[in-house]
Amino acid sequence: MEDLKHIGEDALIGRLVKGLGKGADVVVGPGDDCAVIDVGDEERYQLLKTDCIVEGVHFLAETPGEQVGWKAVARVISDFAAMGGMPSQLLVTLVMPETQHVAYVEKLYQGMQKCAAEYGAVISGGETSSLPTSSAAVISISGTGWVKKAHLVRRDGGKVNDVIMVTGLLGGSIQGKHLSFHPRVKEAQWLVRDFSIHSMMDLSDGLAKDLPRLAALSGCGYELNEAMIPCSKGSDTAGALGDGEDYELLFTVPAHELDTMTEKWNAHFSQLSLTPIGKLTSDMVPSVSLGGGWEHFTS
Amino acid sequence: MEDLKHIGEDALIGRLVKGLGKGADVVVGPGDDCAVIDVGDEERYQLLKTDCIVEGVHFLAETPGEQVGWKAVARVISDFAAMGGMPSQLLVTLVMPETQHVAYVEKLYQGMQKCAAEYGAVISGGETSSLPTSSAAVISISGTGWVKKAHLVRRDGGKVNDVIMVTGLLGGSIQGKHLSFHPRVKEAQWLVRDFSIHSMMDLSDGLAKDLPRLAALSGCGYELNEAMIPCSKGSDTAGALGDGEDYELLFTVPAHELDTMTEKWNAHFSQLSLTPIGKLTSDMVPSVSLGGGWEHFTS
Repeated sequence: MEDLKHIGEDALIGRLVKGLGKGADVVVGPGDDCAVIDVGDEERYQLLKTDCIVEGVHFLAETPGEQVGWKAVARVISDFAAMGGMPSQLLVTLVMPETQHVAYVEKLYQGMQKCAAEYGAVISGGETSSLPTSSAAVISISGTGWVKKAHLVRRDGGKVNDVIMVTGLLGGSIQGKHLSFHPRVKEAQWLVRDFSIHSMMDLSDGLAKDLPRLAALSGCGYELNEAMIPCSKGSDTAGALGDGEDYELLFTVPAHELDTMTEKWNAHFSQLSLTPIGKLTSDMVPSVSLGGGWEHFTS
Repeated sequence: MEDLKHIGEDALIGRLVKGLGKGADVVVGPGDDCAVIDVGDEERYQLLKTDCIVEGVHFLAETPGEQVGWKAVARVISDFAAMGGMPSQLLVTLVMPETQHVAYVEKLYQGMQKCAAEYGAVISGGETSSLPTSSAAVISISGTGWVKKAHLVRRDGGKVNDVIMVTGLLGGSIQGKHLSFHPRVKEAQWLVRDFSIHSMMDLSDGLAKDLPRLAALSGCGYELNEAMIPCSKGSDTAGALGDGEDYELLFTVPAHELDTMTEKWNAHFSQLSLTPIGKLTSDMVPSVSLGGGWEHFTS
């Protein structure tokens, strides 16, 4: 019988969402960084997101609780940023074995609360469940956010000849960044306010997985200038393509805005690089087929 | 070192929520069936809920996927009902081993979709994650709902001399009801529209756990008439108190509304019993100390 390992996460999700109805108030459903809901507010849409981290997959039993908590919340906030939005309310689900230390769980919550507070979010609820012995702990964060209607950016809005841009440096996140990264909320807010960001997502599974997803949803191919990919210290192009967990912004913008954007960016965010790494093309078959990147069940 | 088994779920949550800030738009924070958020809508509050079920705790590996999916969604909808509200958007998190069959996961989704559709909810997003081998699968559902401001019922609004009421029959849920129950949405809607429901919650951990929680939050004690507790076929008072997973409504109402309510209820919901089982008292020490009921980590 066919199992998840054979088809992988992307194909699985494709099959699951086929059977779902679409609500009249759903502006963007499954497949983007967040669901986008029209709740009757004139100026803004609500964003909904759920994300989980699993012991042995996203963190280790020996990872300090405060770092795990930070990561769990920061991942969700990164998704709100990627739609041009801001986080609001967060709900926390802890699935833990009964043998877990209370002190560890308190540290987890301190890390979550620290990250939430830094980005103006509030933990307004949650739940806990026990777990059979020797099972992996799971921390799931769901939340709501808001985006101005005029600022909403989806994954599927990329246009042919858009320049593909990436913030920061990629690769080698496992050295520590994956536990302490800062979601690019203010950077995304700045971008969507002043420029024509056609498509955007956050890089979680690695450029090699995420760029093809963005391009395909936009009905485009892509040309990637591998020599331009900004690599973290100690990483290389292969790591930048495949390591994943960068939590940087990947977005596309019309070529004629590139120079102004770069100049203003450098004045505003002098500590964070912004790099053009290629362009979207009309040819759906990409010029380079990328190896690497993370996909659940098959990786 | 103190672990979760020693302090139990209720004390754990009490310690965790102490460190959290409270947002200005949070009407009801942790501790009730849902978080209640003022999103600027004149007539209604938004309800937020997250709930998870764990293999080996809430369902078994051999339980049919469609039933597991129904249960996962129905539990969340039951919490919306318990606040006087209705569900709207649902997000699904599946944490599954790579060896899980695709066909099982598709059945899961069919069950979730069936329950969502029956109650007017929409699955608008979600995510999947892999899991280390031999770990228990986790299904987490989070969602939004709405409640008219005038219809919001909390756990903590009970008043001295309120009659304690319960819908349906309690106990023995493990015989099957826990997988196929119908959340009491229309019943709760009917109650909050026409009567002064002072406090309400859904019964998930058993009357012996849940009634003391409701009473304590309301600053009351309780007198329970054990002979009046409506037991499911094949169950007894001990089962009705302690089995849990009844997903019936537990609520309190002023005594002078009891007769009218009962009469109208019987005309309207002739297939579902409604039973007065006791009253809230001013004495915070209850007349009966209840045994049984489910608490994560210690049960």
